[in-house]
Amino acid sequence: MIPPRPPRHTAAAGATGRIAQVIVASTRAAAGEYQDRTGPVISAWLTERNWLVLARAVVADGAPVGDALAAAVEAGLDLVITTGGTGVSPTDQTPEQTLPLLDRQLPGITEEMRRRGAASTPFAVLSRGYAGIARGRTVVVNLPGTVGGVRDGLAVLDEVLDHLLDQLHGIDHAAQRPGTQPTRSTSAPAAHSPSSAEERRDDH
Amino acid sequence: MIPPRPPRHTAAAGATGRIAQVIVASTRAAAGEYQDRTGPVISAWLTERNWLVLARAVVADGAPVGDALAAAVEAGLDLVITTGGTGVSPTDQTPEQTLPLLDRQLPGITEEMRRRGAASTPFAVLSRGYAGIARGRTVVVNLPGTVGGVRDGLAVLDEVLDHLLDQLHGIDHAAQRPGTQPTRSTSAPAAHSPSSAEERRDDH
Amino acid sequence: MIPPRPPRHTAAAGATGRIAQVIVASTRAAAGEYQDRTGPVISAWLTERNWLVLARAVVADGAPVGDALAAAVEAGLDLVITTGGTGVSPTDQTPEQTLPLLDRQLPGITEEMRRRGAASTPFAVLSRGYAGIARGRTVVVNLPGTVGGVRDGLAVLDEVLDHLLDQLHGIDHAAQRPGTQPTRSTSAPAAHSPSSAEERRDDH
Repeated sequence: MIPPRPPRHTAAAGATGRIAQVIVASTRAAAGEYQDRTGPVISAWLTERNWLVLARAVVADGAPVGDALAAAVEAGLDLVITTGGTGVSPTDQTPEQTLPLLDRQLPGITEEMRRRGAASTPFAVLSRGYAGIARGRTVVVNLPGTVGGVRDGLAVLDEVLDHLLDQLHGIDHAAQRPGTQPTRSTSAPAAHSPSSAEERRDDH
Repeated sequence: MIPPRPPRHTAAAGATGRIAQVIVASTRAAAGEYQDRTGPVISAWLTERNWLVLARAVVADGAPVGDALAAAVEAGLDLVITTGGTGVSPTDQTPEQTLPLLDRQLPGITEEMRRRGAASTPFAVLSRGYAGIARGRTVVVNLPGTVGGVRDGLAVLDEVLDHLLDQLHGIDHAAQRPGTQPTRSTSAPAAHSPSSAEERRDDH
Repeated sequence: MIPPRPPRHTAAAGATGRIAQVIVASTRAAAGEYQDRTGPVISAWLTERNWLVLARAVVADGAPVGDALAAAVEAGLDLVITTGGTGVSPTDQTPEQTLPLLDRQLPGITEEMRRRGAASTPFAVLSRGYAGIARGRTVVVNLPGTVGGVRDGLAVLDEVLDHLLDQLHGIDHAAQRPGTQPTRSTSAPAAHSPSSAEERRDDH
């Protein structure tokens, strides 16, 4: 399900070197009976931000979502975004498939997505999606299966994703010289982050 | 505690055929030392919306709340709303009694209730109530024990409850002819919802 | 780490008799490489509100935070506020150290802190901090490690902390004569709160 990392890519994509996958949870789309509309929106958003985007996984609701997520986490991807299956219909199982993979939850992200979504539709509060970190490395975010819900969710991610990834990888912003690109710390995940007064200003 | 389903009811109530119960968690009200004020507000709200409303259960805080909830879930009711016992006083145990019964939580609902309540009183953020689904069928919502908190909570439910119940029972809105009443799907709870592009627009 | 209760204190402090401690989670501050800036802000806030404030514990991220928290809870303090370690960098472990000590969570408090913080910085939604009750007595609140995050968090606490503590200790506001100071109930924690119609108005 997860293709090998592409051997080459555009210079723009290479500027971040970060790899994402979109998983579409939809039994009907997986069966070819329905044209998924939210997956392309997410992929386009990622590509515009210079992510390397793996081929989309379009899978049936339930266990196949968990299998696709586990494979993406196993492959060490930086980001996995799911769309669909976050409601309460009998087939909506994306949150249940996601939770066991997370070692840290980020409730503030989904909370904010629901809050913003509620400005458009009251049904936004019904999303049960999770956001969090898997294996100390892969950011996982469950988005709803609607274009509006996806747009609201991406707007929240837009503001925090770079900071989240930098923090996750222990990048020391304050240690960067002005104008240089942040680079990943070479320290092991368990090592102490070289945090500083400057970094602490952003530290939540 | 749960009376058998009424053999007959008004035509208006029959229009939905959905059955709810209100559980009042109040040791003093159960002992007759205090006149419950929030239970009638919730019952009236439900009746106005054509719910069949079973006799209110007024029970002492703690285990009796869990017993009443379990009986309502066992009876297969569509909705159970509790009031009271969501704070942090030593006797407030409604959330603890509720959580074990839920197989799916709906955190966005209680989050939204607290957020709206905070516009009236900062103490709204102290409510620890849950909302969720029990046995894949019964919607359970913990409301505070104050009239203001109940009104804020019902305002949130007003906007999402019909949609939530339809989604829960796998009703395919898109398959309905315009102007017809939604009907329950005859599919088993585990069957795939006949979702469609139209339904997905609302799917969270 | 927890000094014995001070044998005497100012009359102002004695007016509440409530005891708090601030725990600063910062590996670099604990090593003396960094001057903690948020601890003093929290201590000053507490002192202004007539709390008895124990000596600040400045500890390395991770297990030392849990040890300091456990000692404060064991000592029966009324309030422990941590600052730092709520983000997702590899060393941020304050929520993980806090959760096992809580017997009741107060999600509405951290939710409200993130929501208010988001008005200042989108990164506020990344805080993973908890608020809750430990051993049925000690209020524990995780604040971020930034001055802005701490100020947002204290603003939320300012509105609810007195009410929360009164409710926690089963104080019956309605039973107080007008103008008298609330006093702690002498009832055991498991005893029924002498709640009343008046109290229920505030009861969440």
